[in-house]
Amino acid sequence: MKKTKLSLPAGFRCGGVAAGIKRSGKPDVGLIVADRPCTAAGMFTTNKIIGPAVVIDRAHVKNGRAQAIIVNSGNANTCTGRKGVQNALAVCRDIAARFDMCADDVLICSTGIIGHHLPMKKLSAGIAEVSGKLSASVTGAARFSKAILTTDLRPKTAGVKIKLPGGQVTIFGCAKGSGMIAPNMATMLAFILTDANIHATALRRVFREAVGQTFNKVSVDSHMSTSDTALVLASGRADNTLLRDDHKALNLFAAALREVCDSLARQIAADGEGATRLVTVRVEGAATPQDARRAVCAIVDSPLIRCAFHGADPNWGRIVSAVGYCGARIAPEKLTCRIAGVTVFAGGRPRKFDPRRLSERMKQPAWAVEVDLAAGRCGDFRYTCDLSRDYVRINADYHT
Amino acid sequence: MKKTKLSLPAGFRCGGVAAGIKRSGKPDVGLIVADRPCTAAGMFTTNKIIGPAVVIDRAHVKNGRAQAIIVNSGNANTCTGRKGVQNALAVCRDIAARFDMCADDVLICSTGIIGHHLPMKKLSAGIAEVSGKLSASVTGAARFSKAILTTDLRPKTAGVKIKLPGGQVTIFGCAKGSGMIAPNMATMLAFILTDANIHATALRRVFREAVGQTFNKVSVDSHMSTSDTALVLASGRADNTLLRDDHKALNLFAAALREVCDSLARQIAADGEGATRLVTVRVEGAATPQDARRAVCAIVDSPLIRCAFHGADPNWGRIVSAVGYCGARIAPEKLTCRIAGVTVFAGGRPRKFDPRRLSERMKQPAWAVEVDLAAGRCGDFRYTCDLSRDYVRINADYHT
Repeated sequence: MKKTKLSLPAGFRCGGVAAGIKRSGKPDVGLIVADRPCTAAGMFTTNKIIGPAVVIDRAHVKNGRAQAIIVNSGNANTCTGRKGVQNALAVCRDIAARFDMCADDVLICSTGIIGHHLPMKKLSAGIAEVSGKLSASVTGAARFSKAILTTDLRPKTAGVKIKLPGGQVTIFGCAKGSGMIAPNMATMLAFILTDANIHATALRRVFREAVGQTFNKVSVDSHMSTSDTALVLASGRADNTLLRDDHKALNLFAAALREVCDSLARQIAADGEGATRLVTVRVEGAATPQDARRAVCAIVDSPLIRCAFHGADPNWGRIVSAVGYCGARIAPEKLTCRIAGVTVFAGGRPRKFDPRRLSERMKQPAWAVEVDLAAGRCGDFRYTCDLSRDYVRINADYHT
Repeated sequence: MKKTKLSLPAGFRCGGVAAGIKRSGKPDVGLIVADRPCTAAGMFTTNKIIGPAVVIDRAHVKNGRAQAIIVNSGNANTCTGRKGVQNALAVCRDIAARFDMCADDVLICSTGIIGHHLPMKKLSAGIAEVSGKLSASVTGAARFSKAILTTDLRPKTAGVKIKLPGGQVTIFGCAKGSGMIAPNMATMLAFILTDANIHATALRRVFREAVGQTFNKVSVDSHMSTSDTALVLASGRADNTLLRDDHKALNLFAAALREVCDSLARQIAADGEGATRLVTVRVEGAATPQDARRAVCAIVDSPLIRCAFHGADPNWGRIVSAVGYCGARIAPEKLTCRIAGVTVFAGGRPRKFDPRRLSERMKQPAWAVEVDLAAGRCGDFRYTCDLSRDYVRINADYHT
């Protein structure tokens, strides 16, 4: 994606502050407020153990309308029973009262430690503070992007501007990822803001498609979180002709939306816990979409393979053996495997290659593994990262 | 399992030597030879990418008869095409000629690096050497147990003696494991020798059952190998009445066989690459056996959870969330989770416990995680280990 100067779409103000929920003292409360109710859509985790925030957001976004997003990091408010739900609803009412909106138009996201009640006093103070510091400039969005992080090392933002019939439209997005990342119908946390005029049904459809091809293709550690949420708000402040399902320009908007989501998805994989590089794993030649999914998941779910990524080791044996046990139909005698652009395995046999030169390529920050099952025409892909000692350090030293 | 002094059953001689296949100079060629053809059975990897050894052994053991097992470590002879098959068959013929047996009665196992041809000169010299050094005592078995290891730190042996109608029967077993361990219908390499009189059909059945409940329950890194093989040879030298499928004493033999396999399976998990402790994960209260399997696999396949095992962190949140995404039917409000005997989660809520005391328990070399899905009466279990920096070191620093 070409780097364009980020800007916040018209109709939104954002901010982020440190409210003391995180012991580190880093920012942990972020707020987005729209001037008027927006067209909205959301995608959520398919985990059966979910936090109150997911339950509430599902209900609040159902009518295709929302006006504010309040996010805290440092506490997921999951497995906290009825009191957890009451606390989350109280936060929504607090926001609604401050900005004179309907509490049903407030969305809430909480990530961090599981099984602890939200520290309501700190959170309320944080909300009061951030409410007075909202900004319609990209600086406010940057503060918000930092406040939503947990073990992420870098804030993740992306944006585009596109010309549509009637006028220009801006899309801005930000996300958090890092650990517990194997989304299924949604991702950890992602927020997309746009000033586009778009009908709720159309927005829901293009957003679901974009999420399916971007955030749902990320796997840091094949562990699906209980809080995965992706939200999009469209303020309608741009002059473009209203985008509807039968509108040709909807495809342009959908492509731009996907571009923003794709950039954020790659950033999440590249900044996975302990990650030093982004690896895109592509499977083609599968007999069915399910087979393609099986093969690509077997590769990215193997710690053995992801250790080889970390060691910049062109270990095609681990990749080929994973494809062998994944359950997909394969033609072993025609199987092909490319690592960082180099064919290392073809026709069921290893190909000669310079392991030292290939290893150097694998030390680059981003490259791909491509496997052709030679059994059909279906494909799939995932964004993943290497498995490092730092992943173990982060997740073994962290204590509940 | 009670520790009894190991002894080799009558009718077998074993040995192991260093033939220079491993760069480290450690033993890498092991041989078991029976005085006469034995009743035999085998279980193999379900991976679609398999080494010639698996192809040959499947054919050779089909008639329920075998007389020798030749094993090399340091080279898996996988993905080596037609020449790889020819090399493996040549090894079988070599053994057959030396000991005057049918080449079809020779079984072969090769593990180690994938995609390289067997170093036939070194291997032949090793076979010549080990053939002259076979021993019918447990010393020979110990040498064999060492020669089959790859990155294992410890040789793995187990044995029992049981009284059956007609006479006493001895069972001896040894195995290798370490990395690429997630068997499905067989394990890395396991060899069981017994002097029992047993019919081939009965042996096949009780062996399949034992393997299913022991080796198939091990997962070090959810990566299934291309060489998994478990073999059993019965010399018939004991005086017991021939064991047949309808024989009551077969249950006694089956229980003893399972005990030996279970001990080896636990040893494999405990000595997984980088492992510092053995964790048994048990799921109960599942609606179906498939659901029990889904839940237990989601737990042992999560690197996040296995890092918590390493950090001795009673992180029930990771366990409960894995159960939430595994696809099994669960009753979230009745879910129970116990770690090392302590109930940490019940009725959908965390229970109070002393995290420091529990963490101390989790530093012990073996303990269990028990999860009750509260949705039915089915259960399943796995033997696994913690995920350590050493696992990453071993598998990132290893180069193809």
